[in-house]
Amino acid sequence: MRDLSGDHRWMSLNTATVRKQGALLDIIEACARHGIRAIDPWRDQVAATGIERAAKAIRDAGLALSGYCRGGMFTADAARRIEARDDNRRAVDEAKTLGAACLVLVAGGLPQYSRPGSTPSKDIAAAQAQVEDGIAELFDYARTAGMALAIEPLHPMTAADRACVNTMRQALDLCDRIDPARSGMLGVALDVYHVWWDFELMAQIERAGPRRLLAFHVCDWLVPTADTVNDRGMMGDGIIDIPRIRAAVEAQGFGGCVEVEIFSNRWWSAPMDEVLATAIARMKTAV
Amino acid sequence: MRDLSGDHRWMSLNTATVRKQGALLDIIEACARHGIRAIDPWRDQVAATGIERAAKAIRDAGLALSGYCRGGMFTADAARRIEARDDNRRAVDEAKTLGAACLVLVAGGLPQYSRPGSTPSKDIAAAQAQVEDGIAELFDYARTAGMALAIEPLHPMTAADRACVNTMRQALDLCDRIDPARSGMLGVALDVYHVWWDFELMAQIERAGPRRLLAFHVCDWLVPTADTVNDRGMMGDGIIDIPRIRAAVEAQGFGGCVEVEIFSNRWWSAPMDEVLATAIARMKTAV
Repeated sequence: MRDLSGDHRWMSLNTATVRKQGALLDIIEACARHGIRAIDPWRDQVAATGIERAAKAIRDAGLALSGYCRGGMFTADAARRIEARDDNRRAVDEAKTLGAACLVLVAGGLPQYSRPGSTPSKDIAAAQAQVEDGIAELFDYARTAGMALAIEPLHPMTAADRACVNTMRQALDLCDRIDPARSGMLGVALDVYHVWWDFELMAQIERAGPRRLLAFHVCDWLVPTADTVNDRGMMGDGIIDIPRIRAAVEAQGFGGCVEVEIFSNRWWSAPMDEVLATAIARMKTAV
Repeated sequence: MRDLSGDHRWMSLNTATVRKQGALLDIIEACARHGIRAIDPWRDQVAATGIERAAKAIRDAGLALSGYCRGGMFTADAARRIEARDDNRRAVDEAKTLGAACLVLVAGGLPQYSRPGSTPSKDIAAAQAQVEDGIAELFDYARTAGMALAIEPLHPMTAADRACVNTMRQALDLCDRIDPARSGMLGVALDVYHVWWDFELMAQIERAGPRRLLAFHVCDWLVPTADTVNDRGMMGDGIIDIPRIRAAVEAQGFGGCVEVEIFSNRWWSAPMDEVLATAIARMKTAV
């Protein structure tokens, strides 16, 4: 297990963590001030800046991209499936332009939430099947482009409206069916917030191995949790034993960034420099 | 699959559904008014009434008990383990006195939440191991008493503070280790609210079979969910395909009650008769 207590060279900042405090270029400048060497930007932030300008700013700042957020939302009614497919192909192309390590995939929940306007459905099994078809189709495109896809299992409380892939077992089952050769181009993004509770977590991390562990995200679970989306905690403020999960991931050979991703009404209301300074300090003591 | 559209003979009322509107005797009277033939009362409601008085009222009303809520909260620090054990044995005795079909078990989360005052811990795996030990110990006691135990997997969003048994697979793994003979005295309480999202749900229901399916609870998942505990929906108001799950459970031979259990700030603020009339109507159309 790497020693993170001395510096934050392995830290990446998911830019949603400070999305309310500034635009992408502001965030990139703040990373330079704080010696943060990697980020994971979101598509809407990149689009607002312009992708060529964003790519240049990232290059000029010498930032690595631990991932690109996000592709997915595969669940749609028939009228919106081509739109979803093409949207995901553009996400692959953007990730390639930006030099991201992987494109993070959030599956989508029921179609009326993932692709608004879609015919309402309660069929979660159909949604899950559609996600599998969508990932398989995108995988062909992404492999040709040379862009790895990282399926992020999201917490089951998001299953209806955000993602119907909710456990490491489920995500790895998909990987095994779509990429049985374990090419290294399809794997998972493990966010401790989503999977810490799972009695099978350690076994599934071992099952994943280095070829499937493509990204590692941290924040913390607060008790109580006031909002199912935007009440994530700063590392150390909650009840997740983050070092235990990181040890298991690194024991499999994972050597990538530790990405801080905090959706939080509380932290979005703090100054950007305070959020980054706190995250850096917690990386050394609570991760 | 049973036809529930004609009457509500298979309905049971979990008394927490109207706990804010009246005491247990009020609820029993309301059940008589509405032709509800079974309930699942909570220990605190029984204690407030007095167990002998509660038992007599239940007998006099001719009510069956689809379960008794609840035992569990097995996670505690060393100083509180005997207290937890004895508390659970009393729950078994009470369930027996009341004539319940089973004692529902909610595992407990981290010890500081399950048994307040316990030394804080972030070790979810240790909590899960403690739950297994606790159920195994209680199972010996309950079997002798002739009381079945129904482990209720709770939604993962409750893992820290209420239950670290969160999926059917996990609950059935426990059952298989503790009661490999499938005696019928240890099984699961399946609440659609907690497990609807699980990609393995249908396979695990099949695995459970009639010897392990001891209780079936219904309500609905609302989008958005405003509170992680008390924002459950009335059947039909959310996105769970309840008939699909009921069909799978009944295909395994389950012939018990369909128990309505709704923790909801909204429904707790409605008159008791309105809640019961609505639940009865929805049993016929949405379950």
